[in-house]
Parts: sequence; C-alpha cells; structure tokens
Amino acid sequence: MEVAESNEMTLETVRDSLIRQEDTIIFSLIERTKYPINVGAYDKTKTAVSECSDSLVEFMVKETEAAYAKCGRYENPEEHPFFPDGLPTSLVPAFNYPKILHPAAASINVNSTIWEVYFSQLLPLITVPGDDGNYATSAVSDLACLQALSRRIHYGKFVAEVKFKDAPKKYESAICSQDRDALMKLLTFETVEERVKKRVAKKAMLFGQEVSLDDNYDEKKLKIDPAIVSRLYEEWVMPLTKLVEVEYLLRRLD
Amino acid sequence: MEVAESNEMTLETVRDSLIRQEDTIIFSLIERTKYPINVGAYDKTKTAVSECSDSLVEFMVKETEAAYAKCGRYENPEEHPFFPDGLPTSLVPAFNYPKILHPAAASINVNSTIWEVYFSQLLPLITVPGDDGNYATSAVSDLACLQALSRRIHYGKFVAEVKFKDAPKKYESAICSQDRDALMKLLTFETVEERVKKRVAKKAMLFGQEVSLDDNYDEKKLKIDPAIVSRLYEEWVMPLTKLVEVEYLLRRLD
Repeated sequence: MEVAESNEMTLETVRDSLIRQEDTIIFSLIERTKYPINVGAYDKTKTAVSECSDSLVEFMVKETEAAYAKCGRYENPEEHPFFPDGLPTSLVPAFNYPKILHPAAASINVNSTIWEVYFSQLLPLITVPGDDGNYATSAVSDLACLQALSRRIHYGKFVAEVKFKDAPKKYESAICSQDRDALMKLLTFETVEERVKKRVAKKAMLFGQEVSLDDNYDEKKLKIDPAIVSRLYEEWVMPLTKLVEVEYLLRRLD
Repeated sequence: MEVAESNEMTLETVRDSLIRQEDTIIFSLIERTKYPINVGAYDKTKTAVSECSDSLVEFMVKETEAAYAKCGRYENPEEHPFFPDGLPTSLVPAFNYPKILHPAAASINVNSTIWEVYFSQLLPLITVPGDDGNYATSAVSDLACLQALSRRIHYGKFVAEVKFKDAPKKYESAICSQDRDALMKLLTFETVEERVKKRVAKKAMLFGQEVSLDDNYDEKKLKIDPAIVSRLYEEWVMPLTKLVEVEYLLRRLD
C-alpha cells in the first residue's frame, strides 16, 4: 500500500470534503429561506441598476467577485467566479496551492448553468412568494448559495483526478475515443447516489428544525423541505458534478 | 387589547427574529471552523495588501461593503457596515422601510467593538492554529460571521423600541437622568439569559454534528464546542445587545 504524501488528495479526503460541503449548501439554503423570493432582485425587466442594465443580483455578484478577485480568491483552484470576464488581478502575494489538477481544468466552468438552475428552478422551490424589499440582503444570501453549489460541483475536477489516478487504465480508452457516455457510465454509482440523497435529506431535517429547550419536535416548522434538498442533489448537484468530471477526463490526456 | 398593524413589531416578533438569528450566527461560525485561524489574513504585520496598508480582511470587507452599499444594503435599518466612512451611495431605487426606530438610532454602531472581539477573542477559540493559504475564502467566511453578529447585536435597537413602546413609564425617569446603570438593570433578565445560553449550546450541538445515515452519534466530532457558543452569548452577544439597547434608550426622548 502506498503511503499518502501530506496534502495529497485521496478518495477518502475527497469524499470527506464532499460530505462537509453538503452542510455548507444546506446552511446557505436554509438562510435564504428567511426572505421571500424577491423576484425584483434578479428579474431585469422589473428593476435594473442605474448605470448599467444588470439586475441587482448580477450587479452585486459582479462587484463582489471583483473585490474577491483582488484578494486572490480565484487563484484557488477550488473557486470559480460567476462572471470571470474582466476580473481584476490579485493584489495579495500568491499562495503556492498544491498542483493537483491537469492544467486543462482551468478552462472548465459550469457556473452559467448553476446560475440558471438556481434562479429559475431552485429558488422558487425554497422561498415563499413575495417581496419584502430586502433585495441587497437576499442577494448576498443568493451569492452564498451559488458559491456553495459552485464549489461542490466544480469539486468534480478533484473527484475525477483522484479516480483517474487510482485506476487510469479504466478511463483511458473512453478518453481516447472522447466517449462522453462511456465516461458518464464509469462515473455513475447508483447506490452511492441513493445514500447521498438520503443523507442530505436527513441533514436538511436536522439543520432546519426549530430548536427549543423542551423536546417538542415540530416537523411542520422545518425551514426547508428535505425532499427538495434531496431533489436538488438528484437533479442538479450530482449530474452537474458528473458533467464536470466528464469534461475534466475528456481533457485529462491532452 | 390592541390589534397589531401588519408589519408592526411586537415583543413576539422581535423575540422570534432573535431566535432565528441564533441559527444564522451558529451556521456561520460552523462554516468558519472549516479553515484554520489563518492569522496572516488579519494581522497587518504579517501581510498587507499592496496599494494600501490594510490587512487582507480589512481590505476585503471594505471592498465588499462598497459593493453592498451600491446595492442599497445599508438603507435597511437592520444592517450596519463595519467601515461606514466614505461608502458609495445606493444605485438602486429606495425601498420604503417601515419607520420603527427613533432617528437617533442611525448614530449607534458598535461594529468596531464586534470586530475587535471577533478577531482577538472569538476566532482563536473556534479555529485550529495554522495557515492553509485560503485567506480570501476564510475572510469571506469571517465577514459572514461578523455580519450575523452585527445584525443580532444591533437588533437591540428594535428590542429597546418595542420594550419602550410597551411600557414607556418604566424607562422615562432613567432616560431623563441619563442613568445607564439603571437602564441596564431594567433590561437584564437573568432567567431569560440562562435560557438563551442553553438554547444556543443545544443548537451548536445539533447543527455541528456529523450526520451519517446510521444513527451513531459521535460527540467527539462536533464542529464547534457548544460551550464556546454559550460563552459567546454570555460574554459578548447579550452584553453588547444590551449596550445597544441602553444607547438607544438614552436617545429615545431626544
């Protein structure tokens, strides 16, 4: 058995990170449910920021990502901006991140799909209708959700790298023939996916409960529906992660 | 009995908001524990951002708050910037927030104390020593904690207003004589505070647990020590909230 170098990623550390990121995603979604949907913040036809034609959310995310970029956030291969064009360069000393990924990884960014899914499909499922005027605050909360989802889904690059390193022969022929379907099949484990869906539902139930000092547990008062979190993983998080894995593997032998 | 107008704040709605904000604070603290303390991000003597002499965290918070200000975040009387000087004006249409507070409320901002307590006392308690280079990401996580604490503590303005409206006579003589100690005494309820401390510890235990599909509950694996969250409330959150309440009441009859 090989001894893992310190800092080396293994199937075990990758799995632990994915599980920990479930908490981050669920916390951020629960926080977003504090506000109504606030359509005005992201529907350009309802409000747009003066000086540009962006919706409030687009404007806020672009401005915030510019601030993050100056602080070097996107030097980290785990972080992906939603609006990568024209970001300012980092003003802080570069950190020497361990080189784990193939350089082609840098070209993979599915954030535009995540953005679309989040605003058009997920947000209406987790929020109540209405408009409380808290656009800036709910947009900040949207960005936290988007970042958590983006980090989890793009972590597929590391998942793919570790799987490839573990058994390169298994993937080589599908990569050489650029066979997406074959790769997708090799990356799909239904029993694992079922477990993930069950675990995130359980987390949503535990983290979204109303906690009081007496032990009355009121299921009606859950802040988020566990079935929606499970569906989020089934329909969007796991498929998009596998898409990132496939895109990465297709370039892995370049 | 008076019927509450819609949108009117009552002791009940204020209490519900404070309880809900406990979740926000605990979620954000749990998230921050993912990274080591990363002293370099907030110690100016270790790193400073080129072009200015700010620490990375100061720089990031200033830039991010500027973005938020343009989106109108600080028009909301529940939100308080950490660096209020020279913030840009809002570019979005003003929202007509209900006028609940006395205008003097706008002059009360204890964020510099919150900043000091957070970095010098709380952060070393909840993080492990070390430096993983994830400065930008851990700074974003710091800001989430700071904002959650700031919102809760400044919510004291609403607490004080509702308590005053409920029984103005109770506070008038102490306000007229500008007697801080008397006001602090009127605002202190030890049994309530004990309940809050117990509840936040329980929440920290529930939200910080490692969730797995089998029912093995491993207490050693808690992400944050419930006793620290309880202490945070006892030593900082509740005293600072009461400080805000006192400051507000002192100006309430201006």
